[in-house]
Amino acid sequence: MIEVGIVGGTGYTGAELLRLFAGHPSARVSVLTSRQEAGKRADVLFPHLRGRCDLVFTAPDETALARCQVVFFATPHATAMNLAPALLAQGVKIIDLSADFRLKDAAVFNQWYRHDHACPDLLAEAVYGLPEVNRERIRAARLVAAPGCYPTAVQLGLLPLLEADWVEPAHLIADCKSGVSGAGREAKIGSLFCEATESLSAYGVAGHRHLPEIVQGLNGAAKTPVGLTFVPHLTPMIRGIHATLYARLKSAAAAADLQVLFETRYRDEPFVDVLPAGGQPETRAVRGSNLCRIAVHRPSGGDTVVVLSVIDNLLKGAAGQALQCFNLMCGFDERTALDALPLVP
Amino acid sequence: MIEVGIVGGTGYTGAELLRLFAGHPSARVSVLTSRQEAGKRADVLFPHLRGRCDLVFTAPDETALARCQVVFFATPHATAMNLAPALLAQGVKIIDLSADFRLKDAAVFNQWYRHDHACPDLLAEAVYGLPEVNRERIRAARLVAAPGCYPTAVQLGLLPLLEADWVEPAHLIADCKSGVSGAGREAKIGSLFCEATESLSAYGVAGHRHLPEIVQGLNGAAKTPVGLTFVPHLTPMIRGIHATLYARLKSAAAAADLQVLFETRYRDEPFVDVLPAGGQPETRAVRGSNLCRIAVHRPSGGDTVVVLSVIDNLLKGAAGQALQCFNLMCGFDERTALDALPLVP
Amino acid sequence: MIEVGIVGGTGYTGAELLRLFAGHPSARVSVLTSRQEAGKRADVLFPHLRGRCDLVFTAPDETALARCQVVFFATPHATAMNLAPALLAQGVKIIDLSADFRLKDAAVFNQWYRHDHACPDLLAEAVYGLPEVNRERIRAARLVAAPGCYPTAVQLGLLPLLEADWVEPAHLIADCKSGVSGAGREAKIGSLFCEATESLSAYGVAGHRHLPEIVQGLNGAAKTPVGLTFVPHLTPMIRGIHATLYARLKSAAAAADLQVLFETRYRDEPFVDVLPAGGQPETRAVRGSNLCRIAVHRPSGGDTVVVLSVIDNLLKGAAGQALQCFNLMCGFDERTALDALPLVP
Amino acid sequence: MIEVGIVGGTGYTGAELLRLFAGHPSARVSVLTSRQEAGKRADVLFPHLRGRCDLVFTAPDETALARCQVVFFATPHATAMNLAPALLAQGVKIIDLSADFRLKDAAVFNQWYRHDHACPDLLAEAVYGLPEVNRERIRAARLVAAPGCYPTAVQLGLLPLLEADWVEPAHLIADCKSGVSGAGREAKIGSLFCEATESLSAYGVAGHRHLPEIVQGLNGAAKTPVGLTFVPHLTPMIRGIHATLYARLKSAAAAADLQVLFETRYRDEPFVDVLPAGGQPETRAVRGSNLCRIAVHRPSGGDTVVVLSVIDNLLKGAAGQALQCFNLMCGFDERTALDALPLVP
Repeated sequence: MIEVGIVGGTGYTGAELLRLFAGHPSARVSVLTSRQEAGKRADVLFPHLRGRCDLVFTAPDETALARCQVVFFATPHATAMNLAPALLAQGVKIIDLSADFRLKDAAVFNQWYRHDHACPDLLAEAVYGLPEVNRERIRAARLVAAPGCYPTAVQLGLLPLLEADWVEPAHLIADCKSGVSGAGREAKIGSLFCEATESLSAYGVAGHRHLPEIVQGLNGAAKTPVGLTFVPHLTPMIRGIHATLYARLKSAAAAADLQVLFETRYRDEPFVDVLPAGGQPETRAVRGSNLCRIAVHRPSGGDTVVVLSVIDNLLKGAAGQALQCFNLMCGFDERTALDALPLVP
Repeated sequence: MIEVGIVGGTGYTGAELLRLFAGHPSARVSVLTSRQEAGKRADVLFPHLRGRCDLVFTAPDETALARCQVVFFATPHATAMNLAPALLAQGVKIIDLSADFRLKDAAVFNQWYRHDHACPDLLAEAVYGLPEVNRERIRAARLVAAPGCYPTAVQLGLLPLLEADWVEPAHLIADCKSGVSGAGREAKIGSLFCEATESLSAYGVAGHRHLPEIVQGLNGAAKTPVGLTFVPHLTPMIRGIHATLYARLKSAAAAADLQVLFETRYRDEPFVDVLPAGGQPETRAVRGSNLCRIAVHRPSGGDTVVVLSVIDNLLKGAAGQALQCFNLMCGFDERTALDALPLVP
Repeated sequence: MIEVGIVGGTGYTGAELLRLFAGHPSARVSVLTSRQEAGKRADVLFPHLRGRCDLVFTAPDETALARCQVVFFATPHATAMNLAPALLAQGVKIIDLSADFRLKDAAVFNQWYRHDHACPDLLAEAVYGLPEVNRERIRAARLVAAPGCYPTAVQLGLLPLLEADWVEPAHLIADCKSGVSGAGREAKIGSLFCEATESLSAYGVAGHRHLPEIVQGLNGAAKTPVGLTFVPHLTPMIRGIHATLYARLKSAAAAADLQVLFETRYRDEPFVDVLPAGGQPETRAVRGSNLCRIAVHRPSGGDTVVVLSVIDNLLKGAAGQALQCFNLMCGFDERTALDALPLVP
Repeated sequence: MIEVGIVGGTGYTGAELLRLFAGHPSARVSVLTSRQEAGKRADVLFPHLRGRCDLVFTAPDETALARCQVVFFATPHATAMNLAPALLAQGVKIIDLSADFRLKDAAVFNQWYRHDHACPDLLAEAVYGLPEVNRERIRAARLVAAPGCYPTAVQLGLLPLLEADWVEPAHLIADCKSGVSGAGREAKIGSLFCEATESLSAYGVAGHRHLPEIVQGLNGAAKTPVGLTFVPHLTPMIRGIHATLYARLKSAAAAADLQVLFETRYRDEPFVDVLPAGGQPETRAVRGSNLCRIAVHRPSGGDTVVVLSVIDNLLKGAAGQALQCFNLMCGFDERTALDALPLVP
């Protein structure tokens, strides 16, 4: 039985980790920290866990965490990077759901997160936790940076095209729609029911923190610097990201079979489902699951490719993907505790 | 491996049965019927099941169904009663999610459903599938009538009070709020997104079909005819029933401990959770699970008892409860394939 | 042109007052205060007002407010009572949308709001701003306490029955369902989209601040102390209150015509619409309007009366009713700037 | 007082016309037709209109309609084109909210709507009812084709750029998000609350009927054939269209001031609001109003222009724009009965 710690368990990703581990046969959460809620039972904060979770929040304590084999950080940025070196030094593996270890370049981190990085030397070692790209490296990793939600949906949608060098890399467009849970369980006006429901708007058009993360991943796939216009939108639903991706086919690829490309690329992936030609995935068809469903289109047979990619932002976009990495790191079947079907309706 | 048939699998309860059975280790659905969708793959109608369900809808066929050990009816009323006798005669067990076998009195059935009953002789044998009342009879049953959604929430909330004879039976009030999925997956104006969202209204105040079913159950608990005012409301959410129940304490029970009564009554029930004193359950805290969560209050210490009872109408109020009965009938652990935690947020 | 001041204009009732006054031909808002947003344009906080509202928030300033003829308080409780005496002394009329002047008994105010009242001597003078009860007194008032949202829906639904002495006053039940905007435009976890949508729960069962206000009003109508069980519920919609009211008919009233009673009581009311017999009002049928729609039922002809009463909590339950009082106080047609039809769908 | 007829008044656009005309000082609806609802009062179908609308649906009758001065068609396509010639011949002016007269080329109409056009000769005369383009022609028109909802949002967003010849016309992208009311008040599975809420998906990627209409309009502005990729998405809200538009700046326009371009283009438009630089309009900020709010961005100063354009699909995208045309055709102030502010929250 693997002993697991969760730092910062009061948000939605923390709650999802608790829910997922309640069904894991070979691991259990033994430390759950929250400075603010220390002393409170987790099932008081999250009554849906009543009867299946006896944990009590404790103040973060390095000694207690060091007794775990794996520690998840479900914290805002700039927390994991302060605790990670000491835990790693004591042999603890780390899966960070925050942004601290996603970007390889400390200067870029500083530019977007307005923090100096506390341990830039670890950035090279940290493995970007997208199993569809880095599966073997994740298996061997001490430190995994779980990808952001937008980056997961966008990269899985564009990777096949860029790896095949079939589209112009300089003018990619990612028009993304997110449910409100992407903003976290934080008391702010913009996330209120009465502000967010029955409305839709773009935000962060001038620059969103997930942009450099996505670009870094796409650069790797394209083996050349890409140009990306990324426009996220806030939409009135709890869970779900729908990425609508636009790319221009290179003329050399004009006769290419996009459907076969995608099916081949993801044939062995347990959590990527390429829809039959003509498909149009709904976000609810992945709600509550770790799946990414993808469809690829070429409207009117023109040179614009449209990829539709959906995930549950709290699962394949956060806690589910982190658990997928955990399973890989611990030698378990990748799908352990991740086999729930989407909840529809 | 138990072979299961589902008649009428195109609605929400049918889809939920398919989802639940996809996780059942000892049973599998082998026949799935729909007159209208015959020939179509189930995962075309329900894309969330892609990858985990290879079934194809077939036209209802008694011979094929007779090869199953258990057949579920997820049909509108007046279907099961026409097929049940023949299937029972061939040794098939039946779990009917429609109203056909819930009411013991064929005349009452006719009054509320405007149909003569096709096999009134079976009404006495049919076991009302509320495990918290009829567990042992369900284990032994050939024919189970799975309760309606409102009746489940209301009965579980009032049973302890009536069994203990602590409240006046003549003036019970059940003010119930239901999500829209209670109306089924049927194309009708009133269930449209634009009609049902951002609004709330009572309906069926003059008389709702679940009234006689609830009264029949409460009569049994009270051992005297009860008087019930039942007002259902349509509320803008997918899943969930919230029953707010009002009863007048008998003066003999003025000093009674309601909290202990409820905790004792449901101590051994795997799917009924009595909240600590002062609790106020949210419907989402049971969403996607087979749980009923209950709280009991006595505002200002007066003689009015208020019980709050919540379920997921598609699970404890339909498919989940039917599967709970199935597990009992087949000798499995009652909780098999029903251990999912609620999906929150 | 009447000059109007609004103190505390950053909440939903403040925004609604601004919207309503933008359409008022004989009054204009000239002072709009907010300590926190001072210096910001109102249409930056409320972009829907762009092009029709040039106001800038200013810090509260008695001198500026004293130049207005009427000042609205759209503040939390315990603000209006500190400013009211000085403004009244300078001849300003006051319409308070907070709770400060609703309760006639300063001790009851202290018990529920945990504040000593700053000017208990004004409580007797303050007129409770329910035009259907106090129209003439409102016309003549210097100080009006606009009713709470639940109290408006509940009182309008029960008044005819209590005034006629047709129901038992000792065991009234008000099962109320509110949209989330009733909780105000305040950053708190419980009002987040992801917490409030797709769920429903009771709250304040042990005691809600609107209880004494409702009881005070019902006592007045019944001319005897009433007993009321009041259970509010939070429901996933922006606007709307649906009060489902239960009362026991006195035997002397067993043959009474409830429909006629209600139609007669509200015949001349511009904002109360009694539905035809059998009606079941939806909250959306009053959304965006100042209307209260009511239906009265007697299920199965028994002795339990069920009244259904719906309002838009931000209009007839707050800003609309306050403007209705304003029109009366200023000698305008009561309906001025309140003639918008509900927005459906 | 202008006498108005509405053919097909049972949908959302019909209901909105009734609501808007209830506030029009110089016109009144005197004929309201519906084959299916003939004999029923309009306020039974639309209870929110109670007290302000006494109309009764009648079967369509050319004689009655011919007594009106203006007739609106709020019907599915292929209805208006059958009645229009006869009504025009009798001097009735027509505003068609369906697609029958939007496309100038009967062959294109046939290709997308699978109907031969009944009166192709009228296509040249019909004026496309986008006042921001055709104001003077609308004033003089006998027959106006009110634009579709997507076409309104997209054209208003792209017109300034194309008219100025600042962007490459060959590779325009319109990623559009619509509320569910765009699908009409029709009983179909896909529009059910439980199907449409808490989900988001693209549809019609292979080709949507609004595509040729948009292209026709953009061609006119660009004075050259444009290439457009149009991907509509269904989003879980009642009202609202959010068009996110992407275009590549021509190098000659690299130094151009986009903000000034848009502000200048729409300076005198009563219903187009260009947000200050950096703005990001929410759909709710136009809900219930006839406004289009627009913002223009150039992320990272690159050569991709992003335009955000929002409307209420039932108003500026349907009934409101039709009424705007009506006012122009009748010589009224364009804003008559269209001055409601958006309803927020």
